Amino acid sequence: MSLSTQPYKGARDFYPEDKRIQKYEFAVLRSVAERYGYEEYDAPILEPLEIFLAKTGEEIVNEQTYTFTDRGGRQVVIRPEMTPTVSRMVAARRQQLSYPLRWYSIPNLWRYERPQRGRLREHWQLNVDLFGVTTTDAEFEIISLIDDVFKRFKATPEMYEIRINHRGLIDFVLKDYLGLDETERHDVSKLIDRMHKLPDGAFLTELDALISDQRKAEQVPEKLLSFLSSKSIKDIHETLAATPSAAELKELIDKLTQSGISNVRFDPTVMRGFDYYTGIVFEVFDTHPDNNRSMLGGGRYDGLVGLFGVEPVATVGFGWGDVTLTNFLELHSLLPPLPSETRIFVVPIGEDTAKRIDGLVRELRNRGLNIACGDYRKKLGDQIKTADKKGIPFVLIVGENELREQRYVLRELATRNEQQLDINAIESTVKAWAEVHAGN
Amino acid sequence: MSLSTQPYKGARDFYPEDKRIQKYEFAVLRSVAERYGYEEYDAPILEPLEIFLAKTGEEIVNEQTYTFTDRGGRQVVIRPEMTPTVSRMVAARRQQLSYPLRWYSIPNLWRYERPQRGRLREHWQLNVDLFGVTTTDAEFEIISLIDDVFKRFKATPEMYEIRINHRGLIDFVLKDYLGLDETERHDVSKLIDRMHKLPDGAFLTELDALISDQRKAEQVPEKLLSFLSSKSIKDIHETLAATPSAAELKELIDKLTQSGISNVRFDPTVMRGFDYYTGIVFEVFDTHPDNNRSMLGGGRYDGLVGLFGVEPVATVGFGWGDVTLTNFLELHSLLPPLPSETRIFVVPIGEDTAKRIDGLVRELRNRGLNIACGDYRKKLGDQIKTADKKGIPFVLIVGENELREQRYVLRELATRNEQQLDINAIESTVKAWAEVHAGN
Repeated sequence: MSLSTQPYKGARDFYPEDKRIQKYEFAVLRSVAERYGYEEYDAPILEPLEIFLAKTGEEIVNEQTYTFTDRGGRQVVIRPEMTPTVSRMVAARRQQLSYPLRWYSIPNLWRYERPQRGRLREHWQLNVDLFGVTTTDAEFEIISLIDDVFKRFKATPEMYEIRINHRGLIDFVLKDYLGLDETERHDVSKLIDRMHKLPDGAFLTELDALISDQRKAEQVPEKLLSFLSSKSIKDIHETLAATPSAAELKELIDKLTQSGISNVRFDPTVMRGFDYYTGIVFEVFDTHPDNNRSMLGGGRYDGLVGLFGVEPVATVGFGWGDVTLTNFLELHSLLPPLPSETRIFVVPIGEDTAKRIDGLVRELRNRGLNIACGDYRKKLGDQIKTADKKGIPFVLIVGENELREQRYVLRELATRNEQQLDINAIESTVKAWAEVHAGN
Repeated sequence: MSLSTQPYKGARDFYPEDKRIQKYEFAVLRSVAERYGYEEYDAPILEPLEIFLAKTGEEIVNEQTYTFTDRGGRQVVIRPEMTPTVSRMVAARRQQLSYPLRWYSIPNLWRYERPQRGRLREHWQLNVDLFGVTTTDAEFEIISLIDDVFKRFKATPEMYEIRINHRGLIDFVLKDYLGLDETERHDVSKLIDRMHKLPDGAFLTELDALISDQRKAEQVPEKLLSFLSSKSIKDIHETLAATPSAAELKELIDKLTQSGISNVRFDPTVMRGFDYYTGIVFEVFDTHPDNNRSMLGGGRYDGLVGLFGVEPVATVGFGWGDVTLTNFLELHSLLPPLPSETRIFVVPIGEDTAKRIDGLVRELRNRGLNIACGDYRKKLGDQIKTADKKGIPFVLIVGENELREQRYVLRELATRNEQQLDINAIESTVKAWAEVHAGN
């Protein structure tokens, strides 16, 4: 019986044409993060289970992690998210590191869940975190960075919307304004978090089941629904508007708007699933009607570093998965053509030539050109087809005469244009092509 | 009780200064692989256990893998090596892909073993594979590529040695020349594979215990030791020299030597641990007396793709781990200084300035400079120290006067040189610095 060629369920093989897309995406993400002064870090994909038990959220840890016991009896997990890891690393050097600390990473993450559009078991996720800034300057910088990523991908503001909320405001609403007890608050929070995934009407039905008659007599459902339907921070009840959380939200949204980011708004339904958020939270939604969903999210979590026995650090960060990013870029036709990194497929004519082209190939490589060699045993026509299939833009045909005269036939596959050129002209022709077609 | 800040045993946290080293290494590896026309691919870190059971080798699979059962009852493994995976991917598209096929990847791999110098539980490994070439042209290209990686790292030939052997020759020696039966061949092969790790004399003692009196009467130990002590393919017994394997070895070594690679030799003790090799095998040794060990290895494995139920493909490839690479570069002092990617730390003087520098910062970023912002609440001296600690080369000091006159104080930390410059001069100064210090 032969082995299956399928990858593990919910995970992806990246053939070169798929990997090119990922490389393009990661290059843009890295470039923008570094433009804002963020430095890349990394950590093991396996972590002790404990660091996720504290604050990641029960559903994820108990039902969706890849958890197992290693050969030494340790309980380990393939990380489902990066935030506990980065908090661990900052805690380990709490005193030596200098703040503001700007870090980013593009870790590989795993969750055991039913694969579906926009959610796979394996994904990569840009994580950007700013440590040591207590004011909304932090949220402003982080959201500006996200907006610059969209701009760098040539997305326009109507393609996405930045929705902002505040955990402190939600807590105030549920506890002080509506007077819910701890169990009610927990249940209602989880319900709001699932709100956008529920079919029409289901939210009201589930809310009705959660709320006691006494709360109904206190008009809790009406007050909650009124709050959740606010489209602007100016719409909320004056009791809520007087809270420090509402003031922070207003300050941040004003700053972002003034800096030219127009597609930002208050959204009281943004909850974020993780238990560790302590302040402003945000999500960015794709506005495309076929994909109207959250693409990425983040917020302030000032308490996580402190769980590792050191003084807490104010932190704002976000995670942006490659699956939702790729969906967005494809749906909005933002992926540019991505040719092979290989520029020339060298085709020797005959065995004698094949044995004598090493010097030519080496010289082309020394000039910074990426060169693959063909196989002289195959027909010229088949070799040209091979180059074309691989997405290599040029074929260089080398026979006895060409070697003697040191002028070779360079064929551009897209245009079928052929020229007989010396090595200097080959170099300049191919580099000029790359300037236009590959951005280098 | 607070959580531990330690990473999982045998794995590494990469703080930004560590990650810079890895990024530098990977950039060189990618650049050389692409220079030879190889295209990057990737695959999930989890694989079904079956694909490793076939040919990876019993010890690794049974004792050293991270194997577990997922929540759906599937037996999965965190990949200990990439070769079965890349074979699976080629098999899945056996007919659509065009050959020669050149692929590379830098996967993250895990093995459960006692962490020691040069071997950790987690590592990354450059994997380069050439599919579809049956002649030693394949081995020649692959070893030339490896040699170019060393050259790109500025290593000189006396720092490393390329040692080549042939599985076919070893098989002929053990089976036809020495007449060993299957069990004896297996045991002797494993013993030779461990030879360089054994203390002086232990090889002879273990060999003596393995070999029966009858074999001793046939002078098997003497013949084997004579073969294993050959320093050149010219030294081997004429019966062995007449085999096709010896002819291939001679052809390859001659070609490499003629192309200017001087540090290559035949080594009959090179075995490679994996069961799947079918032809020429090689390892590259660090010649430094403090680290005289194999850094990387590879060879021909023509049968692996065929295990997935398709027509086999001739394949030559190698794997080069980042742990041994980093050890080599450090020991030979080949790691260049690696500054932060951040070029300027902007320090606003006072809250008013801080609120008004967004435009300046944005303009500098738009000009392609990586900029981090300081915190106006901290003292100037402390902020300069912060920038220095982060490895950022320049501090830009911005006060009321500077904003008004649009000339800012640029301080180079290494030289303490300060100049008052407009934005154009800042851009050109910092870019000129980067040309010299960061290669861009």
